[in-house]
Amino acid sequence: MSIPDEDPTLGELSEGEILRRLLVRLGPSLALVGPGDDAAVLAAPDGRVVATTDTLVHGPDFRLAWSSGYDLGWKAAAVNLADIAAMGARPTALLVALAVPNSTRMSFVEHLAEGLRAACDALAPGCAVEGGDLTVSDTLTIAVTALGSLDGRAPVLRGGARSGDVVAVAGPLGRAGRGLAILFGRFGGSAGAPAAVDLEALTPEESAALTAQLRPDPPIRLGPVAADAGATAMMDVSDGLVLDASRLAAASGVTVEIDSSTLGADAVVALTGGEDHALLATFPMSLALPDGFRPIGRVVPQAAYPVLVDGRPHDGRGGWDPYRDWDAHGG
Amino acid sequence: MSIPDEDPTLGELSEGEILRRLLVRLGPSLALVGPGDDAAVLAAPDGRVVATTDTLVHGPDFRLAWSSGYDLGWKAAAVNLADIAAMGARPTALLVALAVPNSTRMSFVEHLAEGLRAACDALAPGCAVEGGDLTVSDTLTIAVTALGSLDGRAPVLRGGARSGDVVAVAGPLGRAGRGLAILFGRFGGSAGAPAAVDLEALTPEESAALTAQLRPDPPIRLGPVAADAGATAMMDVSDGLVLDASRLAAASGVTVEIDSSTLGADAVVALTGGEDHALLATFPMSLALPDGFRPIGRVVPQAAYPVLVDGRPHDGRGGWDPYRDWDAHGG
Repeated sequence: MSIPDEDPTLGELSEGEILRRLLVRLGPSLALVGPGDDAAVLAAPDGRVVATTDTLVHGPDFRLAWSSGYDLGWKAAAVNLADIAAMGARPTALLVALAVPNSTRMSFVEHLAEGLRAACDALAPGCAVEGGDLTVSDTLTIAVTALGSLDGRAPVLRGGARSGDVVAVAGPLGRAGRGLAILFGRFGGSAGAPAAVDLEALTPEESAALTAQLRPDPPIRLGPVAADAGATAMMDVSDGLVLDASRLAAASGVTVEIDSSTLGADAVVALTGGEDHALLATFPMSLALPDGFRPIGRVVPQAAYPVLVDGRPHDGRGGWDPYRDWDAHGG
Repeated sequence: MSIPDEDPTLGELSEGEILRRLLVRLGPSLALVGPGDDAAVLAAPDGRVVATTDTLVHGPDFRLAWSSGYDLGWKAAAVNLADIAAMGARPTALLVALAVPNSTRMSFVEHLAEGLRAACDALAPGCAVEGGDLTVSDTLTIAVTALGSLDGRAPVLRGGARSGDVVAVAGPLGRAGRGLAILFGRFGGSAGAPAAVDLEALTPEESAALTAQLRPDPPIRLGPVAADAGATAMMDVSDGLVLDASRLAAASGVTVEIDSSTLGADAVVALTGGEDHALLATFPMSLALPDGFRPIGRVVPQAAYPVLVDGRPHDGRGGWDPYRDWDAHGG
């Protein structure tokens, strides 16, 4: 008989024991049928369900030297909740497929579950993890599916922007990008190995940027608000404002003009930094912008470029590149 | 300018080009809003949606020497469709989160998309891939979420079996397990490296078992049929009949008695072999079993063991063990 480790690895525990420990931390189910059967059953009150999936992979998407289990759970939830909100919908449930090395400590996965729950509670009350799957893998992978309800609204698509609309944003732009620059610039380490984050070495503003990168805080509740206020198009800004605005412009057959003077002191990172998951939306000029949205530009007829910044084209490069060289031994 | 390879790797193509090539192979969307926006919008006609997620990971779940891209797409779809069917529901949509090494050939991922579509078309007409996510990873990982509609039915849970019910099964038992034994026994290779499957070396029956393992054929349409016929409990057999029947028994607070004489010539593999995704269901004795289901035993009051085979306890071991030692260099 072996003496149990205080913080065992997953390989040392049975699947049943692992799931029991995680379910406690995920909190109570709010579904018609919650975790534990072959599938969950969720309410879809208006006869439709909104569904999206987004994955965080160790290496391309995060470094374990920089992100705690809690951070990863929070972020995996937040990025999916933002995609639901960007349709004008209210998140109702998450399903989480977790693939984890056997050598992972149980406490790490418990913190991940706590981060998932905390993000739901803070950003989308009424939404909880209602199903999942746990697998062994050489690569830590968190694939989340989020479901949501439009509550009778029409979905707000990317393709509805019309010339004359106001372009507006809710939520931060560039904060997560600044956090990423701090991680790579200050804690990148030598020889490609990331160093642990030393919060003492940061100013309060740098620390806030780091938090925005590791635990993004998208304005989920403003998705339905924008839909109710008459948004003609909407999407979340995951890859940078210029790049995502160019997608919205292409889908709508228009050009988006952005005034960089609306973007604060560091307009460059606001234009290119990704991962804030702010909501980018267009509204008819005749309507008042809902609280929480600020104007950043206007929609004009389709021109040679999908996006113009201060009247000029912008290549939109910047932000986290998932195809960046990744050294598996670097953490 | 480089000359394009006839079968480029994913790392040689842009994300947009990869997605364009995959979308063509996934076929037309059947959703209210299909792929291409922040999220899909699916019909949930009775005001509820059934949702489940299940993942295939290179190493613990499959070997690339044995499974083609087509096989993996088919299997990833089939195992999730079976979980929807096991609730008594009709599958309506899949969302697929794919994490793939950059060195993967585009043709492999195209075949994976074709396998996903073919499994939907064959097993669950009306269901298609309506959303997804593509990420770079060191470990090939296919996380599928399936959604379904109960069309007004009550969901059939694991916990509804009552003493006196007939225990019945639809679909094969043990075929996929025989296929697994053939793979490890005949194509395991030396030094842990799996060898390519040589179909010429197999009898027709062995070849059928291999197909059952690599491209399982669960009776998806019989899930709603069982629900309509009055099934009191249901689940899919993914980890072996004895193990899964013991879960159904525990959830229902009963004991399941299985007659091994009903299981064919090789009862041992039928009792322990996993991955056939047959439907295991219980029905009141007063009702006729629906076509496609065959009786294999009965439900009795809870006894010392959750499952008895021919009156004796059975440890249920066998089948694929995801925690089996996995050598990442072995394929």
